[in-house]
Amino acid sequence: MNIVIAVDSFKGSANTFEVADSIEKGIKRVEQSAVVTKLPLADGGEGTVDALVTALNGKYFEEEVTGPLGEKVTAKWGLINNNIAVIAMAEASGLTLIKKEDKNPFKTTTYGTGQLIKAALDYGVKEIFVGIGGSATNDAGVGMAQALGVSFKDKYSQEIGFGAEALANIEFIDDSKLDRRINETKISVFSDVKNPLCGKDGASFVYGPQKGASNDDVEILDQLLKKYGRKLEEQLDINIMDEEGAGAAGGLGAGLLAFCNAEIFSGIDRILNLIKLEEYMKNADLVITGEGKVDSQSVHGKAPIGVARIAKKCGIPVIAVVGSEEANIVDVYNQGIDLVIDIINKPMSLSEAMNNAPELIENAGEKVIRAFALKNKTLKMKEEIV
Amino acid sequence: MNIVIAVDSFKGSANTFEVADSIEKGIKRVEQSAVVTKLPLADGGEGTVDALVTALNGKYFEEEVTGPLGEKVTAKWGLINNNIAVIAMAEASGLTLIKKEDKNPFKTTTYGTGQLIKAALDYGVKEIFVGIGGSATNDAGVGMAQALGVSFKDKYSQEIGFGAEALANIEFIDDSKLDRRINETKISVFSDVKNPLCGKDGASFVYGPQKGASNDDVEILDQLLKKYGRKLEEQLDINIMDEEGAGAAGGLGAGLLAFCNAEIFSGIDRILNLIKLEEYMKNADLVITGEGKVDSQSVHGKAPIGVARIAKKCGIPVIAVVGSEEANIVDVYNQGIDLVIDIINKPMSLSEAMNNAPELIENAGEKVIRAFALKNKTLKMKEEIV
Repeated sequence: MNIVIAVDSFKGSANTFEVADSIEKGIKRVEQSAVVTKLPLADGGEGTVDALVTALNGKYFEEEVTGPLGEKVTAKWGLINNNIAVIAMAEASGLTLIKKEDKNPFKTTTYGTGQLIKAALDYGVKEIFVGIGGSATNDAGVGMAQALGVSFKDKYSQEIGFGAEALANIEFIDDSKLDRRINETKISVFSDVKNPLCGKDGASFVYGPQKGASNDDVEILDQLLKKYGRKLEEQLDINIMDEEGAGAAGGLGAGLLAFCNAEIFSGIDRILNLIKLEEYMKNADLVITGEGKVDSQSVHGKAPIGVARIAKKCGIPVIAVVGSEEANIVDVYNQGIDLVIDIINKPMSLSEAMNNAPELIENAGEKVIRAFALKNKTLKMKEEIV
Repeated sequence: MNIVIAVDSFKGSANTFEVADSIEKGIKRVEQSAVVTKLPLADGGEGTVDALVTALNGKYFEEEVTGPLGEKVTAKWGLINNNIAVIAMAEASGLTLIKKEDKNPFKTTTYGTGQLIKAALDYGVKEIFVGIGGSATNDAGVGMAQALGVSFKDKYSQEIGFGAEALANIEFIDDSKLDRRINETKISVFSDVKNPLCGKDGASFVYGPQKGASNDDVEILDQLLKKYGRKLEEQLDINIMDEEGAGAAGGLGAGLLAFCNAEIFSGIDRILNLIKLEEYMKNADLVITGEGKVDSQSVHGKAPIGVARIAKKCGIPVIAVVGSEEANIVDVYNQGIDLVIDIINKPMSLSEAMNNAPELIENAGEKVIRAFALKNKTLKMKEEIV
């Protein structure tokens, strides 16, 4: 029996490698002879560099950069296929880099992400993947642009500071010193977020709260982004406010579109292509995917759905192992997942579930293989009786 | 597709009928054309009368009897096959009849259960099934015996009162007025409890705490049962203290063995036989069973295991839907359950799970059928590709 495991991380409790290892253990409880291929998976957020570098036998690089609150952080990026850099904004400007009580979307900057892009340009890559999940920022990518040479000046001709609060002061934008290597390098953004920069569907309203914004803050942040967007139009004739994905990662999407000629891709499809999932599936009898949380609202661009799409193409059944499931997941089933197995096996708190994730995921792995084995059961048992 | 559902109740949240209905709804979400046969199941406790009367198209009777704390309660019993009475001690002397704060194994009596037996004798049945799960009592069945004419007198020749506390006063036991019809009637006890009357494995130590006994109480209760057991030997030469099952239902097992010539059966096997599960299975493609809680310690005599045993004989796959699962349920799988599906689909409290049981069970029903349908998926999809 050939089984391919391609699971996303269970955020906060287990990364893609740990989830896959636990599922494999569960499988081996029942089917010791199963041949299991584990392909690391990521969705553009935290873990994206590790997943791609591991899957493609790439190289790691480290860079000391400016963290979300201006402090120094050591951020890794990856090189795959010798000429593609893999950057995850979460490594330099991510929410997991700051303490819960320090979350502050008025202060946080994407400057470090710009420094990682610059490091990749220095190395001389042909293409840069920028995963933009897990952002702590709401600065419309202004910090990132600053790191690449764009200047944002206030009315006293002083360079503005970090964070969304500084957007209020922008009077002059000068992109004449923008690192020109950007134009010779393909910038591919991995994002599954379609939101525009501003408004009720924009960066601040939709993602501000998880970065620490109150309801009032969200209104202010939205106004700041709007002011900045208009300034960009006035000064440089750049119109990105309504572009799909401009509102991703607190507007980093907008920044990458405005200054880096970036193209936004569905992260998961591109990643599945890179890790050659389809090739591995050709000899598989079963594909196991999964993620921390599944619900009907968040089907688009989710890793398990991407996996299911390819599995259907290859005619392989797909079972998803999930940490938490919203009641009605009919859309998940409609997108090609054949069965969803929950790791939660009795009433328990979220922290209990997170603390026991390895064991719970292992149990779920056992269930997956027992569910799959049902197909042999009917036939074999009927034969035995005859 | 023919599906048989035979699930035990999820105690405290849904009876066997409700569980089966919810599972059926989940099945119909996916397979509208499935032919579903629902067989009510019980394990000798609460719900046993309803399950058997419904399954076998029996009749209900009601009797005003003495409840566990001496109050009047209306208890039902059933008649099946025109000559078998179905009695559940839980209906007359059960834990669910008293408030949590009123639990008191020193006071509770099985008198009402004896009255139900008497009512069945009055009707003139050939056999009486006595389900003894869910007991509130620890009186060694003395109350039951009193209701049937046995006299227990103290040193002043006064009839003793109710409950375990009165066992201390027994000086003379007189069974000369025991209802003689008992000898012409088969008394079949449904119990899966093998415990002896006394000692660390006895009624008081093992089941006392759930009836409200403290650690100290348990020691006293055990001594009371021991004193009574010895008195029974001295006075009537009846030796039941070490009989298997004497400790069931706070010693009601002992009482039924001592005075009613009872035979103790595994409840579930007898019930499965009565509801003709095996016959229904012959045309089934899949059997769904389940219960509120499954763990490796409680495999013996559990309804789902009984169902699985018959299913294996018939060559049908068995999937169990459960409310709560202990981590290592390898014994459950070893007993023939092919797959266990948990109803809990995200971190939640026990009360949240109980309040949402119908919906959670319905979701699990959907998963069952999706797991079962995997077997077609592989084949069909491979064909489509070719």
